[in-house]
Amino acid sequence: MAQKFQTLPGFRDFYPADCAARNYLFGKWRSVAQAYGFVEYDSPILEPTDLYKRKSGEEIVHQLFCFTDKGERDVSMRPELTPSLARMAAARQRDFKKPLKWFSIGQFFRYEKQQKGRLREFYQFNCDILGEPSPAADAELVALSIDLMRSLGFGPDDFAIKLSDRTAWSIFIEQAGIDAEKTDAFLQVIDKLERDKAEKLDEKLGELGTSLEAVREFIDSGTAESECESLQQILGDLKARGMSDFIRIDLSIVRGLAYYSGPVFEVFDIGKGMRAVAGGGRYDQLVQLIGGVDLPATGFAMGDVVVTDLVRETPAANEQFEQAIKKAEAIDAFVIIADEEQRPQGLQTVQQLRESGLRVNFPLVPAKIAKQFQSAGQQGAQLAIIIGSEYPELTIKDLSTRTEVVCDINDLSTKMTELLRPQ
Amino acid sequence: MAQKFQTLPGFRDFYPADCAARNYLFGKWRSVAQAYGFVEYDSPILEPTDLYKRKSGEEIVHQLFCFTDKGERDVSMRPELTPSLARMAAARQRDFKKPLKWFSIGQFFRYEKQQKGRLREFYQFNCDILGEPSPAADAELVALSIDLMRSLGFGPDDFAIKLSDRTAWSIFIEQAGIDAEKTDAFLQVIDKLERDKAEKLDEKLGELGTSLEAVREFIDSGTAESECESLQQILGDLKARGMSDFIRIDLSIVRGLAYYSGPVFEVFDIGKGMRAVAGGGRYDQLVQLIGGVDLPATGFAMGDVVVTDLVRETPAANEQFEQAIKKAEAIDAFVIIADEEQRPQGLQTVQQLRESGLRVNFPLVPAKIAKQFQSAGQQGAQLAIIIGSEYPELTIKDLSTRTEVVCDINDLSTKMTELLRPQ
Repeated sequence: MAQKFQTLPGFRDFYPADCAARNYLFGKWRSVAQAYGFVEYDSPILEPTDLYKRKSGEEIVHQLFCFTDKGERDVSMRPELTPSLARMAAARQRDFKKPLKWFSIGQFFRYEKQQKGRLREFYQFNCDILGEPSPAADAELVALSIDLMRSLGFGPDDFAIKLSDRTAWSIFIEQAGIDAEKTDAFLQVIDKLERDKAEKLDEKLGELGTSLEAVREFIDSGTAESECESLQQILGDLKARGMSDFIRIDLSIVRGLAYYSGPVFEVFDIGKGMRAVAGGGRYDQLVQLIGGVDLPATGFAMGDVVVTDLVRETPAANEQFEQAIKKAEAIDAFVIIADEEQRPQGLQTVQQLRESGLRVNFPLVPAKIAKQFQSAGQQGAQLAIIIGSEYPELTIKDLSTRTEVVCDINDLSTKMTELLRPQ
Repeated sequence: MAQKFQTLPGFRDFYPADCAARNYLFGKWRSVAQAYGFVEYDSPILEPTDLYKRKSGEEIVHQLFCFTDKGERDVSMRPELTPSLARMAAARQRDFKKPLKWFSIGQFFRYEKQQKGRLREFYQFNCDILGEPSPAADAELVALSIDLMRSLGFGPDDFAIKLSDRTAWSIFIEQAGIDAEKTDAFLQVIDKLERDKAEKLDEKLGELGTSLEAVREFIDSGTAESECESLQQILGDLKARGMSDFIRIDLSIVRGLAYYSGPVFEVFDIGKGMRAVAGGGRYDQLVQLIGGVDLPATGFAMGDVVVTDLVRETPAANEQFEQAIKKAEAIDAFVIIADEEQRPQGLQTVQQLRESGLRVNFPLVPAKIAKQFQSAGQQGAQLAIIIGSEYPELTIKDLSTRTEVVCDINDLSTKMTELLRPQ
């Protein structure tokens, strides 16, 4: 027997229900970003491998889908969007008024060990503000992430924002007398605060001239909130938007990547997992590194896999999700051809309804009336339009209320508008 | 100086205006397919290379972005959707009622020489009906392709459908006494009827036991329309839908690919280029070949590059296109902070408007009022909401009519609904 083809490991087929779920998420990403005045862009799925090395070093190659193309170019399927954004923004920054408020929805690829919440391809929402150094831009992104989560049906019991600022640690670094050149090494220890053992942390901090105790004291002291100006400004801004309840200052969040330069934040689920659902921060030097143009920037990203898991686990969010998927797959009306003699009139009716913007199906081949009603039900049709020998008189049946009305073909559009529940 | 990164040849950056253009096309593809009762699905962008070889032979490898992944798998970035569709449909066909009416919008990759209308990546709309052998399914697809073109603003002077049927040629093959086993060889000559020289064609047809004259006579005779049942049925169906004017029977269309087995069609532009904008046909054996399941199928595809060129060249279509792009990038309102003391109230107002679903921007940092009005205009805002020292009283200014109204913050939502033109 011939070989059966299978989906590659870590890749997904999107059957209609999966695709509707994906599109539901895309719709929320898009509509909230647009409400915030962001415009959509996209980058190529394939880029020169050097673009990713420039940002992340040679190491990155191990997790890339990279290869040499037929023109001997080293290319990679994109593992993330930021390097492409930096390239694009630098190349044409003079054509756009600052700040740029840009978002993107796209697919990304990483050759990684699969585990729960991690595949080899995933979709990601990226949202960035370029050309604005003020913490007001960071606050705008934190607010957007909150509204995104709310639009998905999550409330303050489901998620919160861990907010931090790398510059808050410079207050500590100065107080503790640590060499400013050791800032990166210090932040790398802080990044592991929740994961490494106390002994190991204390040893590493000792080498830098401080201690775990001093670090913990600084975190608990509230010094950052009262003395770090950018954090203060973000907190004040979010308070004015009525979003204070979602914010947790958490200085242990520094987000590993060396290129962050200011405020950083993570959206995390309060429930069981404490998973990071989204995250980002300010990266004022990256556009310079990639594109040779000085353009301050801040942004965040949300993947599709973790947030969709979270939606499914959260009853209120899941109900909204399920209903949207059901609606996405449902048609408005099914035209029942009760008399094959009237098939041309049936086709004409189908055409008329579709031209008015409705989603309409009909039996492509002759079928018993009972079977046609069954199809109408399976496809989630709200109305059945029955075309029989009485044509141009026809019957409209509401499949949920089981009520019927008889009307003339010329009045069909008007009747339909009355009968269809507001969308 | 550091290397400047560039987009790979044949790949596109989608800056906001490009992305809006792309999304406009996606929106038309999606809404027309949904009006026809199709549901959306998608396949992985990376598939085993063997999947494409099974359908198209070893030859295909020359135009693939293919490579060996880190797990030693021969993989390819998808050059087309049909093999994946056949794999997916075969794997789960029992879970779905027949016929399956599925569409997809996705990106594809071919390592080809670039030329006008051809890049190394492109988007494609794929639309297929599986599980229905009747020509009624083919008619449904032809109708959909017509409505797709009309939704883009094209009329009967801009495009037409070339309709043919491979089985119509079996009438000729029988009449001419050609060996039925030579059908494929014969159709390959017919496929080149418009491109090869008469002499060459006549020679090849002579080898098959017929002549170019006999072929031309058969085409002109109208025998196909009157004796080929599937063509007759498709024509009758499209007539009932009021679409006859778009149809040209053209038996020279057989669409090279060997796997087509019945009706085939092309959407082509009537104007200068006579370009094929979309095309497809019936392929009843392919799902069996790929997935080992007997499932009759018919489908067509439309790429984004040629149709977008055509939109830009066609005034009526282009005007609709430009307006949609402008609208996609425009915000509804810009909140002007006329007095920095009132910034918190401004942020609160922004939040309130965004929560009501409007697209709203505001100055992230203090700016002169004139500059804020300028930003509002540049972003296509219809309304400016001016927050100043009179707050909770504020002013709404319509930026196109230049009229102003003063209202209380509590009445803002109501006033906005009145003022915003229906979307």
